[in-house]
Amino acid sequence: MTEAADSHWIAVDWGTSNLRAWKMAPDGTPIEGRDSPKGMGALDPDAFEPTFLDLAGDWLPENRTTVAVACGMVGARQGWVEAAYAAVPCPPHDLTRFVRAPVRDRRLSFQIIPGLSQASPADVMRGEETQIAGLLHRRPKFDGVLCLPGTHTKWAHISAGEVVSFTTYMSGEIFALLSGQSVLRHSVQSDGWSDEDFAEAVEEILSHPERLAARLFGIRAGSLLSGLTPDRARARLSGCLIGLELAGSKPHWLGRDVVLVGSEALSSRYARALALCGLSAETANATELTLAGLTAAHAHLTREGTPL
Amino acid sequence: MTEAADSHWIAVDWGTSNLRAWKMAPDGTPIEGRDSPKGMGALDPDAFEPTFLDLAGDWLPENRTTVAVACGMVGARQGWVEAAYAAVPCPPHDLTRFVRAPVRDRRLSFQIIPGLSQASPADVMRGEETQIAGLLHRRPKFDGVLCLPGTHTKWAHISAGEVVSFTTYMSGEIFALLSGQSVLRHSVQSDGWSDEDFAEAVEEILSHPERLAARLFGIRAGSLLSGLTPDRARARLSGCLIGLELAGSKPHWLGRDVVLVGSEALSSRYARALALCGLSAETANATELTLAGLTAAHAHLTREGTPL
Repeated sequence: MTEAADSHWIAVDWGTSNLRAWKMAPDGTPIEGRDSPKGMGALDPDAFEPTFLDLAGDWLPENRTTVAVACGMVGARQGWVEAAYAAVPCPPHDLTRFVRAPVRDRRLSFQIIPGLSQASPADVMRGEETQIAGLLHRRPKFDGVLCLPGTHTKWAHISAGEVVSFTTYMSGEIFALLSGQSVLRHSVQSDGWSDEDFAEAVEEILSHPERLAARLFGIRAGSLLSGLTPDRARARLSGCLIGLELAGSKPHWLGRDVVLVGSEALSSRYARALALCGLSAETANATELTLAGLTAAHAHLTREGTPL
Repeated sequence: MTEAADSHWIAVDWGTSNLRAWKMAPDGTPIEGRDSPKGMGALDPDAFEPTFLDLAGDWLPENRTTVAVACGMVGARQGWVEAAYAAVPCPPHDLTRFVRAPVRDRRLSFQIIPGLSQASPADVMRGEETQIAGLLHRRPKFDGVLCLPGTHTKWAHISAGEVVSFTTYMSGEIFALLSGQSVLRHSVQSDGWSDEDFAEAVEEILSHPERLAARLFGIRAGSLLSGLTPDRARARLSGCLIGLELAGSKPHWLGRDVVLVGSEALSSRYARALALCGLSAETANATELTLAGLTAAHAHLTREGTPL
């Protein structure tokens, strides 16, 4: 075994519904990635170590301790071990708050990165702070807003290397519930799309957010009465919810640089909606930022000589 | 058998998820009521007649034809037989549009009342038109707004004996999905309540509807960070959704008399929210209005000599 191969470490993103791990070269290049559906939501505290070893045990040489650095819900109160939130304003990562999980296997040192909290308005994140750290690692002087679209979309205001404030929007989860389980499911089953309906809905709700309550059932009525097609109905539903989110997050994005960090499909919807507000957003790859953030954290841990 | 007992008829409210039938005296007094979970949503067209006969077949004497008058989703395109919507503005019931279901049993004449539609903004109702007819039967000169809270709350503007316009809000269904299936389910499991949190949420969203998107996740964050109790969280969720509905329906209720027609618990929440807007709403019993509407329809059918 060569020296380089011997000094790899493991990057981990352990969310509610899945677990992803990468064998990493010291310089932050991923050597191999694996994932598992064994998210934190399905595991008792005792099950984390065996689950991790099942997925990545063969990445642990016998002759040394290998470091794993993990972000996400693994550090929640219901996770492996609680990594208490750091309160904003603060840098996205604070080494002194990382928590070492209680492992039995002597080959492994498992470090958990805490999430961030905000006292007022109350809010929390776990995992996204590492993507923010990744962006700041690449662009230390970044001053603007990160939007991380997903089930629970986060908008975070970043300045002077710190997360100043952030807000979570449930638009993604509400879209999933309404399109999959409400009366609207009959109207929006489609893989298609209509840019025009999306734009109309975004613009209407952006200027009249109070209309959301009625516009949602209007999608069902439109498909019953006037043949609104499923592509158009789906685009309208998405436009209504993203429109409400942009109306609510306006204080975050108005007059600031925005970087979108999420899946390509969802980021492009947000980019289009922001373009309707006259704002041109950049996009960044979520997995790349997660790995950049975990790599920066690993480098700091190593440099600081924190007992791993 | 006396003459009176022999001239009963049957009132039917056949919705998506259940079927209710009452044996009715000619003057509209309910003699007996029964219900069944066999709603329209679970039945093929062929199954409606046997389902009805299972529930109420013993109310059909051999020696004559008994009339049943039904409202609700039984008249939807996916129901027993379609009773095409009447378009507002129009009276809630139009006898010429009632549809007779195709029955095999000669003891039965089954009349279906059509729902109402609105072209723009697109909207539909089935069942609530009969509660409106019930109110107008009791108070022919009523001029104001009916609010029928439920899974899909309807607000209808009534004037000169007609439904002028109406709007459907999905607040009830969204409350059920968010409290039962979203991340908020961890925070709102309670039978308790907090009037103060409800009022705060109604007032905030009424004046700032765009904040809804963030306030929902704020309920989860509040329970994680500051010990927001499940009663308070549940009241906040309800207040956010009813607040958005009142913000959207303001053109309906502003400066008008409002009558609330729904379950006692839900109507009292709406009454409290409206009181925060300086509006004192009356309440009426939903089942009583349904029976009054069906009785008025039956009386008209009999009087008009429509071939039953």
